[in-house]
Amino acid sequence: MGDALRADTPAGFGAALVAEGLLVPMGVAGLYGRDARLEAIIEGVDRLVLRAGMADGAASLRFPPTIPRDVLERSDYLRSFPHLTGTVHGFTGGEHEHAELLERLEQGTGWWRGLQATDVVLTPAACYPVYPVLAGTLPRAGRLVDVCSQVFRREPSDDPTRMQAFRMHEQVCAGNAEQCLAHRDRWVERGLALLHALEVPGKVRPANDPFFGRGGKVQKAMQREQALKFEFVIPICSEDKPTAIGSCNYHMDHFGVAFDIKAADGQVAHSACVGFGLERIALALFKRHGLDLSGWPREVRDVLALG
Amino acid sequence: MGDALRADTPAGFGAALVAEGLLVPMGVAGLYGRDARLEAIIEGVDRLVLRAGMADGAASLRFPPTIPRDVLERSDYLRSFPHLTGTVHGFTGGEHEHAELLERLEQGTGWWRGLQATDVVLTPAACYPVYPVLAGTLPRAGRLVDVCSQVFRREPSDDPTRMQAFRMHEQVCAGNAEQCLAHRDRWVERGLALLHALEVPGKVRPANDPFFGRGGKVQKAMQREQALKFEFVIPICSEDKPTAIGSCNYHMDHFGVAFDIKAADGQVAHSACVGFGLERIALALFKRHGLDLSGWPREVRDVLALG
Repeated sequence: MGDALRADTPAGFGAALVAEGLLVPMGVAGLYGRDARLEAIIEGVDRLVLRAGMADGAASLRFPPTIPRDVLERSDYLRSFPHLTGTVHGFTGGEHEHAELLERLEQGTGWWRGLQATDVVLTPAACYPVYPVLAGTLPRAGRLVDVCSQVFRREPSDDPTRMQAFRMHEQVCAGNAEQCLAHRDRWVERGLALLHALEVPGKVRPANDPFFGRGGKVQKAMQREQALKFEFVIPICSEDKPTAIGSCNYHMDHFGVAFDIKAADGQVAHSACVGFGLERIALALFKRHGLDLSGWPREVRDVLALG
Repeated sequence: MGDALRADTPAGFGAALVAEGLLVPMGVAGLYGRDARLEAIIEGVDRLVLRAGMADGAASLRFPPTIPRDVLERSDYLRSFPHLTGTVHGFTGGEHEHAELLERLEQGTGWWRGLQATDVVLTPAACYPVYPVLAGTLPRAGRLVDVCSQVFRREPSDDPTRMQAFRMHEQVCAGNAEQCLAHRDRWVERGLALLHALEVPGKVRPANDPFFGRGGKVQKAMQREQALKFEFVIPICSEDKPTAIGSCNYHMDHFGVAFDIKAADGQVAHSACVGFGLERIALALFKRHGLDLSGWPREVRDVLALG
């Protein structure tokens, strides 16, 4: 194991990944290119999560990294996580406004002033575009949906485990409370089994979302008290502060109310989602098994189909 | 062949794809979810382009759907395509500003007012983040880079072949003029061979980019006169106006100047890129072979590894 892997600061670990060419810095904190080795690992993990969902009969859907603004508004995301939001703005002017834009660009006075908010925002979590699709009355068994997408969180950081843009693979359940709790609990076991197969030291623990501001403290406390969220954590850059690489969330009727989803019995549907951060899992694998894939345990290479 | 496939208007074809469940409307024109069948086709096409690039010794890199704003500014994109740009804005306020945001949300008076432009924009073409990485002096043979990413074009449309968010797979060459022209011309042949293998009626023709405004007319004319751009086109919704599903572009020293890339001889590097719109190719396949994949020619299923 080289010095790089003993780097126990996020910046040191990031520098080692960049030096090895696995991550390519893009000049903005938290944005990186990925090389083919990193992509192969991510595809391997992605396939494992997909197959587990298929075994349950989940329908697989893939959404773009941008979703309607309306979905963010209805979901209450803006109440809980305004600081992580990314909205998309565009140019709607004519030739005159274009000339002005170019003049501001030339003079460095903010060419983007005057751009208009579009009806599109960046996807904050892979499951968000699923809920509008589920509107209406669910079948008796509920619905399971497998989704994976590029997501955006506006939190620039030099910690490579805290990217602004990364991939999240989620398994969503909508139905009655029992179905959703069973889904979440089944995936707690599955997630641990997946991490065990990857030979990384993962654990599960109660958790809360990073709700914004002082008011957010109450939301955090309630989420923990009601045991709505569990996280899978792995020590990557710190033994004391392990990194969350995924989570299992029971939303109660939050999205059911917001998106008019009814269970088969006519009650407002409940929902649960289980999400895995693919880049973080890949980084945990590098930290554990080294930056040279040829030195990884045969069993881990096999389960990821790395050849 | 069902009525759906005789639909010769974009809206009719889109409705047929939605009715079959291949595309899932998201409530904003040009944003769609994709089901597993559509994804399998896209992955198949993606693999074909990747393998051809690998055979040339291209390095494969994958970038997120967001890139530094600086890349857009240096590339001259804002001069040519302001109308297609998407910038990312975020919330930088505290609790007081958050309360105001939520009040505007409640009252429907534009909660996004007061958001600040970030240093991040949506990726307009898969090749853009490559050029900053190539800064410096290239090896004698030049550099080949294989990239694929989610891209964004702000052009809402009900035509399913004109999405706001879609995947673009590109093969980029940077080096001297001869290397770049050879790359482009090699891929003209390869692209036609790929379309032939997919048994879709593709052709190649001189083309120009959709430069903005009256000034853009000159750019369009120059681009055609200098034979810088060729498009692969396939009739999808119209025989008279076939749809571009990819293009082969010679940039001369445009990106070399913008991003300080030098050829091995010390001259400003030239570049070329060849891009394929993966969703458009998938839609061309559905139009040609039908919405039921089981009825597709065996050879086409094999080349896409659809099983």
